[in-house]
Amino acid sequence: MAEPRVPLFEHRLGRRVEFHETDAAGLAHFSSFFHYMEEAEHALWREAGLSIAPPDSAFGWPRLEAAFAYHRALRFEDEFEIHIRITAIEEQKIRYVCVLRRDGKKIATGTLTIICVSKRPGEAMKAIPIPPQIAARFRAAPASHD
Amino acid sequence: MAEPRVPLFEHRLGRRVEFHETDAAGLAHFSSFFHYMEEAEHALWREAGLSIAPPDSAFGWPRLEAAFAYHRALRFEDEFEIHIRITAIEEQKIRYVCVLRRDGKKIATGTLTIICVSKRPGEAMKAIPIPPQIAARFRAAPASHD
Amino acid sequence: MAEPRVPLFEHRLGRRVEFHETDAAGLAHFSSFFHYMEEAEHALWREAGLSIAPPDSAFGWPRLEAAFAYHRALRFEDEFEIHIRITAIEEQKIRYVCVLRRDGKKIATGTLTIICVSKRPGEAMKAIPIPPQIAARFRAAPASHD
Amino acid sequence: MAEPRVPLFEHRLGRRVEFHETDAAGLAHFSSFFHYMEEAEHALWREAGLSIAPPDSAFGWPRLEAAFAYHRALRFEDEFEIHIRITAIEEQKIRYVCVLRRDGKKIATGTLTIICVSKRPGEAMKAIPIPPQIAARFRAAPASHD
Repeated sequence: MAEPRVPLFEHRLGRRVEFHETDAAGLAHFSSFFHYMEEAEHALWREAGLSIAPPDSAFGWPRLEAAFAYHRALRFEDEFEIHIRITAIEEQKIRYVCVLRRDGKKIATGTLTIICVSKRPGEAMKAIPIPPQIAARFRAAPASHD
Repeated sequence: MAEPRVPLFEHRLGRRVEFHETDAAGLAHFSSFFHYMEEAEHALWREAGLSIAPPDSAFGWPRLEAAFAYHRALRFEDEFEIHIRITAIEEQKIRYVCVLRRDGKKIATGTLTIICVSKRPGEAMKAIPIPPQIAARFRAAPASHD
Repeated sequence: MAEPRVPLFEHRLGRRVEFHETDAAGLAHFSSFFHYMEEAEHALWREAGLSIAPPDSAFGWPRLEAAFAYHRALRFEDEFEIHIRITAIEEQKIRYVCVLRRDGKKIATGTLTIICVSKRPGEAMKAIPIPPQIAARFRAAPASHD
Repeated sequence: MAEPRVPLFEHRLGRRVEFHETDAAGLAHFSSFFHYMEEAEHALWREAGLSIAPPDSAFGWPRLEAAFAYHRALRFEDEFEIHIRITAIEEQKIRYVCVLRRDGKKIATGTLTIICVSKRPGEAMKAIPIPPQIAARFRAAPASHD
């Protein structure tokens, strides 16, 4: 794209609970919510013109912290929205908050912190500053925004 | 079993990273750690003579909160220990902390809070006090214990 | 819906490979393809006005056979189409074939056979004829169709 | 290891159904069986002194075909045995059969075919003959063996 992009701070992704994501309690398994949050994160990056894991990239984005508070359950074929927002962009880290909603009701609230690392074959991962071409595509959400 | 059981507060489970738990970054995917934590939780319950989800049970244990802080990565076939401990037993809730270690090094630290709910067909789940026959099998880990 | 539906025999579902579906070889894990096939199956049922697993249903649809032949690999963020078709509707069984395509190229070919069973609490599952209100919504794809 | 190994043709792995592997029908999800089969395959390779995916390997083992026939269901905490056997070692391929048993009863029968490919950065995967140091560690199971 030729024209400059506006830095992004959020993304909303529609999703449906798949059968393989449910468990014997009849609910979407709590670990599936971390898949949902990550899917929205990667959709945000794509909307910003980026892939979080392009082939043969010299750096990567391991997760430092991930959490969910569960308010309501989701069941098979329930449709919901995943709303992810950037809460902070630091030298090496990006912090997100993620709210799942169904029919306007909060289902769960997640947080995620990722860190930029260099990846060289045979070497340990090492934290590095976020490359400027990536940092330029994102910004933190306004404080009052929800 | 005829003789009374001592209430339990922890369990240690050995595990190996399976290939289907890895991702294209070559690491165990961050969502797999929630599977590991839950597997150790259920092993603790089995050691206490219980199943957390017996067939046709009138109550269940949805998750209220789940979190991990990731300190180091795990890779395919890495062997590690999952050490789960109960940090609090409240009227309706059980709180755990979970440390993953490999070769004595901390890989990740998780927390998990579960809540006891009644399950009746056609009714919404409702929080209830932990049934006494379950509460009697567990206790909180000593504060200094790690 | 008041007007009669035409029986369906196929569904096409667009999909993208998610990061949690990849493995350390950098490819979509072979087990993910079975998720893809089932997601398309359930989308076909929804298009037919049905859920394959409605709450408190008296019958269910366990899988009898599932298979995939893998022709090409899929990688993170690859977009592809899942084309599922019904090849046979028998007294108790439905048979599907499923082709995954990317940019017009065949990625994989799957087959799936499901069987209708009655589900009564405390009893073993037992094969039963497909209920007529379900059988009426589907038909086998024309033989020449691909 | 200094002493020569006897080529292996089978492995038996004990396993328990984890909660995250179940679905809203109360059964181990059919896709989990492919995880079980692969876990037994990789355990067979480890018993042969090999890893199927060592770091920075110049070749890999994508799956060509995978299938399961499901005879009985598995439920949460069911214990079962995964018995994998090599049925053929061809120039580029290894074929397996895999039987899951619980209390001596057949639960499911799987088949798996893998192919050896060279992996060079930036190049497409290409089928190659199985390296002799790997082929020497395995052999096909006797025909009458079950």
